Amino acid sequence: MDSEAARERALDAAERLFYGRGVQAVGMDDVRGASGVSLKRLYQLFPAKEQLVVACLERRDVRWRGRLAEHVDRYEEPGSRILAVFDWLGQWFAEPDFRGCAWINAYGELGATSAPVADRVRAHKGAFRAFLDGLAGEAGLPAAVGGQLFLLAEGAMVTAGVTGGTEPARSAREAARVLLDAAGADFPAPDAAGVSAPSATR
Amino acid sequence: MDSEAARERALDAAERLFYGRGVQAVGMDDVRGASGVSLKRLYQLFPAKEQLVVACLERRDVRWRGRLAEHVDRYEEPGSRILAVFDWLGQWFAEPDFRGCAWINAYGELGATSAPVADRVRAHKGAFRAFLDGLAGEAGLPAAVGGQLFLLAEGAMVTAGVTGGTEPARSAREAARVLLDAAGADFPAPDAAGVSAPSATR
Repeated sequence: MDSEAARERALDAAERLFYGRGVQAVGMDDVRGASGVSLKRLYQLFPAKEQLVVACLERRDVRWRGRLAEHVDRYEEPGSRILAVFDWLGQWFAEPDFRGCAWINAYGELGATSAPVADRVRAHKGAFRAFLDGLAGEAGLPAAVGGQLFLLAEGAMVTAGVTGGTEPARSAREAARVLLDAAGADFPAPDAAGVSAPSATR
Repeated sequence: MDSEAARERALDAAERLFYGRGVQAVGMDDVRGASGVSLKRLYQLFPAKEQLVVACLERRDVRWRGRLAEHVDRYEEPGSRILAVFDWLGQWFAEPDFRGCAWINAYGELGATSAPVADRVRAHKGAFRAFLDGLAGEAGLPAAVGGQLFLLAEGAMVTAGVTGGTEPARSAREAARVLLDAAGADFPAPDAAGVSAPSATR
C-alpha cells in the first residue's frame, strides 16, 4: 500500500468512525483496526489525532460542497436553484448513516479546545454561506436573504441530526419559498422534491 | 455544606466547565476543584459523570425556558410575542460567555454514545418547539409556521455559536417577520430589539 492509498484508507475509516461516534470516542487504535493501516504508518501520516480530524473535515468539505453544487447545477432557473439546496439536504438527511452535520458536531465537541478544528468549521460554514449568497445574488435578491436561507439550512441540519427524519428539509424549503416570494424572486411553478437517488455519504 | 448546597455547587461548577470547554475535556477532578465539593461527595451525588451531565442539562432546561417565557410574557400581542423570542436569543448571544447552544453542543459530543444525554437534548428541543407552536397557535397561524420559526431559531443558535456575534438573531427575526406577514399574522408596528439588560447565563 503506497502512502497515498494508506492516507485515503485512514481518512475513510477515521471519517466514518468520527462521524458515527464522535471524535473523542474514537482512538487511533480504532482507526488502525478499521483501516488496516498500521499505527506506525498512521502516526507518520498524522502525527497527532487533531491533524487526522482536520484532514477528514477538509476532505469532507470538498466532497460535500461539490455534491451540493452538482445537484444545484441540474437546475437553471435561479429560484429553483435555491430550492434545490433544500431538496438536496432532504436527500442527505434520508441517508441511513445520517447523524447530523459533521461540522456542527465537531464544533460542539472540539470547538472550545481545538483552534484548528474550530477554524475548519468556520471555513466550511463560511463557504456554504457564500454559496447561498451567490445563489441569492443570481436570483437578484438582497444578500440578507442569503443569510436567512443559511439559517434555515443550518436549523434543518441540526434538527434533522437531533430528531432524525427529513421533515426539517421540507419545512425549511417551504419557509425558503415564502422568503423568496416575499423578496420578489421570480421562478416557475414549484417542482417536487429532487428525484435523483441519494448519493453516498456527503 | 448540606447535601442540597453541595449538589447546587457541583452543578454550578460542572455546568460552567462543560459549557465552556466541552463535556469530555472536563474531569470529575476539575469539578471538584471548581466547586470545592470533595470527590467522595461528588461521587455520592453523581455516581457517574453522565448523571452529572444529565442533571446539568435538566437544570439548565428549566432555567433557559423559564427566562425565555418570562421575556416573551412582557408582550401581549401574539405577533410581538413571537418576535420577542428572537430578541431574547440576541441578548443571549451577546453574553460574554456565550458558546452556542448547550444542547446542540452536547448532542454533537455525546449524542451518539450516551442515550440519556441524547434523550435530554430531544426533550429540550421538543419543549422549545412546543413553546413556538403554542405562540404560533396564539397568533392564529398554522402549526407549520411554528416549525419554520423553530428552524430559524436553531439556525441562529448554531450560527451564533460558530461565528460569534448577535447578527444571526437579527437575521432570523427579519425572516420570522416575513413568514408571519405571509401567513397573515396581525401585529402592530415592529418594535426595536428588546431593551432589557441581558440576564445571566441562560
